[in-house]
Amino acid sequence: MKIVVDAMGGDYAPDVVIEGVQAAVKEYAVEVVLVGDESKIKSCLDRHKVSSSNITICPAQEVIGMSESAAASVRRKRNSSIVVGINLVKNGQADAFFSAGNTGAVVCAATLSLGLLPGIERPGIGIVMPTIQGASIVIDVGANIDPKPSQLLQYGIMASLYFEHILKRQNPKVGLLNVGEEETKGTEFMKETHELLSGSHLNFIGNVEGKDLFSGKCDVIVCDGFVGNVALKVSESVAEAIQIFLKRHLLSNLWGKVGLLFLLPSLKKFKKEVDYSEYGGAPLLGIDGVVIIGHGRSNMNAIKNAIRVAKDEVERRFNEKITEAIKPLPQA
Amino acid sequence: MKIVVDAMGGDYAPDVVIEGVQAAVKEYAVEVVLVGDESKIKSCLDRHKVSSSNITICPAQEVIGMSESAAASVRRKRNSSIVVGINLVKNGQADAFFSAGNTGAVVCAATLSLGLLPGIERPGIGIVMPTIQGASIVIDVGANIDPKPSQLLQYGIMASLYFEHILKRQNPKVGLLNVGEEETKGTEFMKETHELLSGSHLNFIGNVEGKDLFSGKCDVIVCDGFVGNVALKVSESVAEAIQIFLKRHLLSNLWGKVGLLFLLPSLKKFKKEVDYSEYGGAPLLGIDGVVIIGHGRSNMNAIKNAIRVAKDEVERRFNEKITEAIKPLPQA
Repeated sequence: MKIVVDAMGGDYAPDVVIEGVQAAVKEYAVEVVLVGDESKIKSCLDRHKVSSSNITICPAQEVIGMSESAAASVRRKRNSSIVVGINLVKNGQADAFFSAGNTGAVVCAATLSLGLLPGIERPGIGIVMPTIQGASIVIDVGANIDPKPSQLLQYGIMASLYFEHILKRQNPKVGLLNVGEEETKGTEFMKETHELLSGSHLNFIGNVEGKDLFSGKCDVIVCDGFVGNVALKVSESVAEAIQIFLKRHLLSNLWGKVGLLFLLPSLKKFKKEVDYSEYGGAPLLGIDGVVIIGHGRSNMNAIKNAIRVAKDEVERRFNEKITEAIKPLPQA
Repeated sequence: MKIVVDAMGGDYAPDVVIEGVQAAVKEYAVEVVLVGDESKIKSCLDRHKVSSSNITICPAQEVIGMSESAAASVRRKRNSSIVVGINLVKNGQADAFFSAGNTGAVVCAATLSLGLLPGIERPGIGIVMPTIQGASIVIDVGANIDPKPSQLLQYGIMASLYFEHILKRQNPKVGLLNVGEEETKGTEFMKETHELLSGSHLNFIGNVEGKDLFSGKCDVIVCDGFVGNVALKVSESVAEAIQIFLKRHLLSNLWGKVGLLFLLPSLKKFKKEVDYSEYGGAPLLGIDGVVIIGHGRSNMNAIKNAIRVAKDEVERRFNEKITEAIKPLPQA
């Protein structure tokens, strides 16, 4: 099992990436190919005293920045860590690719280079989120901001399979993210999508609302990439704002500071429960290859777990499951 | 100044509505007309020992339920508290209308009965939210789920005026909610809207992302009603989930319980700072009349403050400001 990791991707690259890789190689018995600036990677490996025969380097001179235009940068930077790394998977030299770098560029390079699974119209990014009743998966969070209803149906199918085969929970409940629960709610696009999902083999529970994102009402939440992207980033924004507000008030007086000391053990447990890094990266589903995308702010734990997710997808031949499920559907 | 309040609207109606009205009448020297089931209102007024010559009743036999279809219920229930209440404003018997009931029905009845301000294409719901740097306003959060770019421009104009005249803060920064900051980001619809906003007189700072909803990066966040509705409900969902997670961990052991005791004063201040009820209701902007919409879960304080907001809009002749600002724009 050989997994390519973009050493240049993420806000804390390459250091945090390499720490995560080091932990993953130890824990999951995988081989990792670090792709990126060779001298930077080497000095980072030295700095962290990493020397393992399971970690090799594939040089790539260029880096696609976090805010570069996806399509243009993939076309122009043929020697970027993302393009070179994905080509290793394409050429059969590795089994999976992970990057915490420019999400759009990863989606674009993966689609161009690896192509889509048979019958799949567009790839979608699924993201596993903590809810008050265990994990749920939201798809799509930004790969496809102007999808067709048939594409959302495919997202529902792929994410349900992910839930069953990777998260190992059976018969996931699928909801469609809409502005109200009644099936007549939403735009024409939403009504058409609702009809398609209703007629599918999925365990479709109907429309859900933004308030259900963390309620655990369903296991798979299907949405277009625009709405999913906003929803995901709003969630982060709220959580951060609450932290800032709380700190502002709790640290403003002695009682607050004393109280916090008592709470530390509980807060640690809380943090672990809602820590997205436990779920690793977000699978880019529908690609003919295993590609995992990390949050720009991925920490060591997130990198490590993303590699675990990549390994699981490869080992469980996850893409074959998608192909089997999509085959019987009418093609667009 | 006479404000019509839907006594039947909201999850805790009529009791909480009447408590809020009682407080508002005392504090803001307004007259309130309670519209709804006369006997229920009377017994509730008795229960709360309310007797003020500034509170009168306008009977309305029907109630539009929270989950009823907006257009159909407004057409069918001509004697509902929402339809009867809005007609009081239409007929000049009152200055403003407030309801914490079925939002869609309020939008529909207001549009049909009061009509739109000259030049306004569609009404929009603005909602004032706490950010880490003071309040911001998000528009639209659900009145118009499939808008045109010109309508989003109008929302930006109306919400900027609201910020200046009602929230009393000058030269608000306006952002467009998108999936990335670069102006090339998003759907064709978003690019067109970006261009319109760029060419306007507004203090447009460009695209903002979901993560900026609570960062205070801008004062007015413009979005389509579908995305705004999801974003708003996701925010509530995150905040609730965090509360549940925290309680689960903090109350699971003695240290947590002791620590919480120390924190109570700080938590109270925190709660006040992020309490949406301080901002009252959400203005339905663009209607030829003053209409304020409350959250279904409005508490007494939210009802009271919504009445204050209605009073402010009337006193400051807010709709005239909108009409003046819209007049010079090219009409669709």
